[in-house]
Amino acid sequence: MRRRAVAEGGYVHGYSPVEARRLNDQADALAALLHAGTTYPAGSRVLEAGCGVGAQTARLASGSPRAQITAVDVSEDSLAQARAHVAANVPEARVQWRCADLYELPFSDGMFDHVFVCFVLEHLKDPEGALEELRRVLRPGGTVTVIEGDHGSAFFHPDSAYARAAIDRQIQLQSAAGGNALIGRRLEPLLSAVGFADVAVRPCTVYADRARPGLVEGFTRNTFIAMVEAVRDNALTAGLTTRTEWDRGIADLYRTTEPGGTFHYTFFKAVAVNPGSPTHTRSTASGPWAVSCG
Amino acid sequence: MRRRAVAEGGYVHGYSPVEARRLNDQADALAALLHAGTTYPAGSRVLEAGCGVGAQTARLASGSPRAQITAVDVSEDSLAQARAHVAANVPEARVQWRCADLYELPFSDGMFDHVFVCFVLEHLKDPEGALEELRRVLRPGGTVTVIEGDHGSAFFHPDSAYARAAIDRQIQLQSAAGGNALIGRRLEPLLSAVGFADVAVRPCTVYADRARPGLVEGFTRNTFIAMVEAVRDNALTAGLTTRTEWDRGIADLYRTTEPGGTFHYTFFKAVAVNPGSPTHTRSTASGPWAVSCG
Repeated sequence: MRRRAVAEGGYVHGYSPVEARRLNDQADALAALLHAGTTYPAGSRVLEAGCGVGAQTARLASGSPRAQITAVDVSEDSLAQARAHVAANVPEARVQWRCADLYELPFSDGMFDHVFVCFVLEHLKDPEGALEELRRVLRPGGTVTVIEGDHGSAFFHPDSAYARAAIDRQIQLQSAAGGNALIGRRLEPLLSAVGFADVAVRPCTVYADRARPGLVEGFTRNTFIAMVEAVRDNALTAGLTTRTEWDRGIADLYRTTEPGGTFHYTFFKAVAVNPGSPTHTRSTASGPWAVSCG
Repeated sequence: MRRRAVAEGGYVHGYSPVEARRLNDQADALAALLHAGTTYPAGSRVLEAGCGVGAQTARLASGSPRAQITAVDVSEDSLAQARAHVAANVPEARVQWRCADLYELPFSDGMFDHVFVCFVLEHLKDPEGALEELRRVLRPGGTVTVIEGDHGSAFFHPDSAYARAAIDRQIQLQSAAGGNALIGRRLEPLLSAVGFADVAVRPCTVYADRARPGLVEGFTRNTFIAMVEAVRDNALTAGLTTRTEWDRGIADLYRTTEPGGTFHYTFFKAVAVNPGSPTHTRSTASGPWAVSCG
């Protein structure tokens, strides 16, 4: 869902200041959910691959103040914004910034202890290729953390075929740009296919109703619906929808934020280990259940 | 999802011994998830409304051994099975069994401290009417706990239009029988509309991949896919599908249980208070987020 430079194609979310602000709002709203449990030890070398405008970089830096964070993005403009964002919000942070292509990172084999990737793979034409490159720069025994959404996880009350169609247009446009808005459900097979071991995926569920006004505002309105609304012009230009259909879909999405409405979305957070050799080891996650009650 | 007598219509899951076993398997698999946090104090009067074959009754009795549990179902046959199931599994339990219609309970106003309803509302033509009756027999300040699934929350990898169509056939048949397989997302507005206060709904997410073989077997195969498969003959008889389409859908659902496959489903658990007067009070849930990572 985050602003992400895609070297080989367009970027579905666009690059406007409004979009940059939305992405920072989103980072605030979801930080507690998505960063929970992600802290890196003092001195550990951490690569954030695809830092965009720095929303997650600031969280990483404040959550792991003594780690050595290197943040990479393919866009110089995004990097400049990220640097300013981190300077303003975590002034004590010491982040190394590098402009580079995810598929050809300017780093030696195994030079990082940990890699962090958030809302990046969803925008790539070749997520396997990117993960292979990330595995290359990760030391044996090092971990990769991947966080992605899955727009197919969105459901809501009142249900609406128009609202679902509007979301589908966003999914189609992201797909046309080479991405995959349904990538959350694929994290386990993707990481396993690239040779990571001990792949552990957790669903991170967001559910909003009138008892959670902060979540209705911060997530349903300002994150999810704002993201769908942002593709309006592209969807109309591409002939994927009509003004009438689109407006009805957006209006129906907003109805889910009114009293009596509900909204559900699931993110996925995966952690896996670089086994350091082509031999693929696997251990079964402890406990039989990946279940949680919010 | 559970066997449930529906006074005014058919019961989508049927009444076979295989189905009864599936429902008990499901109860075992999901108990840790769904019953977490549900314990009632010694001496409290607890009504389980719609106990079916007793799968949840046994959990209630073992989780709240000193509560006074009354279990009600509209089917004498189900009650007999429930009684036998509880006797076999929680022999020390002292449960009162009553055969009664949920809409006309043979109890005085306010005679229970707590009401527990699990996988029941999804099968009712008039869930509001049932909740009104449950509120009547609940004392002011007493709580109702409602657990329901939502089949629209199911998504998986590999994705498949056939698999989604097979699930939709189950949803259609449940709807034709007067129920609503998408009721989970509606718990908050339903409870609020009936006048319950402090309605707090939590998503309970189940996610299965190859790292969780117990969950692939216990939930994806033996609970969810088994439930969909059980409506095969009805779906064919009703002309909702063809043998070819159906078999492809089921085969594609099974593909999600193979290595590299993933499966996601969300239950909802609501707790609300009977305010004891028509005045509807509400407090905002503590903390702005209803989020969780499994």
